[in-house]
Amino acid sequence: MQTISVKTRQRAEFVEITDRVQKYVDESGLSRGAVIVFVPHTTAACTINENADPDVVRDMLKETSKIVPFESDYRHAEGNSDSHIKASFFGASELVLIEKGKLVLGTWQGIYFCEFDGPRDRKVYLSLMQAAP
Amino acid sequence: MQTISVKTRQRAEFVEITDRVQKYVDESGLSRGAVIVFVPHTTAACTINENADPDVVRDMLKETSKIVPFESDYRHAEGNSDSHIKASFFGASELVLIEKGKLVLGTWQGIYFCEFDGPRDRKVYLSLMQAAP
Amino acid sequence: MQTISVKTRQRAEFVEITDRVQKYVDESGLSRGAVIVFVPHTTAACTINENADPDVVRDMLKETSKIVPFESDYRHAEGNSDSHIKASFFGASELVLIEKGKLVLGTWQGIYFCEFDGPRDRKVYLSLMQAAP
Repeated sequence: MQTISVKTRQRAEFVEITDRVQKYVDESGLSRGAVIVFVPHTTAACTINENADPDVVRDMLKETSKIVPFESDYRHAEGNSDSHIKASFFGASELVLIEKGKLVLGTWQGIYFCEFDGPRDRKVYLSLMQAAP
Repeated sequence: MQTISVKTRQRAEFVEITDRVQKYVDESGLSRGAVIVFVPHTTAACTINENADPDVVRDMLKETSKIVPFESDYRHAEGNSDSHIKASFFGASELVLIEKGKLVLGTWQGIYFCEFDGPRDRKVYLSLMQAAP
Repeated sequence: MQTISVKTRQRAEFVEITDRVQKYVDESGLSRGAVIVFVPHTTAACTINENADPDVVRDMLKETSKIVPFESDYRHAEGNSDSHIKASFFGASELVLIEKGKLVLGTWQGIYFCEFDGPRDRKVYLSLMQAAP
């Protein structure tokens, strides 16, 4: 297992980590299997989405904050109930296949760390799973 | 594979199952790998979120029911279309890493069974995956 | 790893692929483990939900399009920002257990390819993971 650090600078922000996940796979020497990307936080998540046009991430963040509003009749006193809900909608982990030592992603896909209650210093855990023979 | 039973008492309710997943890992003797938590229902799900302040779960349930309303122009006659949608937003499974025989979770993270159409008697499947060497 | 093709005919549509995933498992001869279903697109996803009453899928698609509207103050010029958001809410992958060569699914569960920006020719990647001994 490897831990990578992600420093976020906004309350809500997506940080692409595809290259760092590929680097972890490179260093492991694993040819075939899968990598688990796991976020050990409850107001952050990870997702796979487009990394070509930055307006996609901008639209995703803005619309998600309309769907899950910052203010509502929340009781949790920390003022980040929206962040917890977004974290569960996007999910704590992603699973990406590995073939010939490379992440198997579509042309436009990147792996993102999703910050929903930043800015903060965050962590992501990476681990490799074995393919069936 | 192991099946655990969860009895829910409300229409919408999160039941924490972290200890039961850890117990399964303990009994297996597995030191390193991952556990799959899978919910074999279509109006329930599982998620990982905060288990410190119970208001977080309360806020998540209440706001999710505003985002996905109970009444809309649904056609499915059982009156639980909202439950099916929530189930897919939260997802049927979670994957948690295991190191030195322990679930690798963040400080505030717990594993929850998410009931969206209770009260019912539910099941959760647990299974262990092998880490790459 | 195997690639299957899915041809969609609507902008938003769920296509059940359970039988094709089971066929892949059958052909592999794997008795115990898990199958990863991965969608290499950023405006499509996969999910597990009811395959008995087709009104469930109809309600899920219709209500999801109310929750994540087609028109909003999006900037991404391709007119499919809603599709990207839906893709991340539903998720790019599903993980299903295999016991005695069969997918371990609940009575009403089916595996769906979720099209959110069709009609298009799409792909799904299938791969098998090894169970811990």
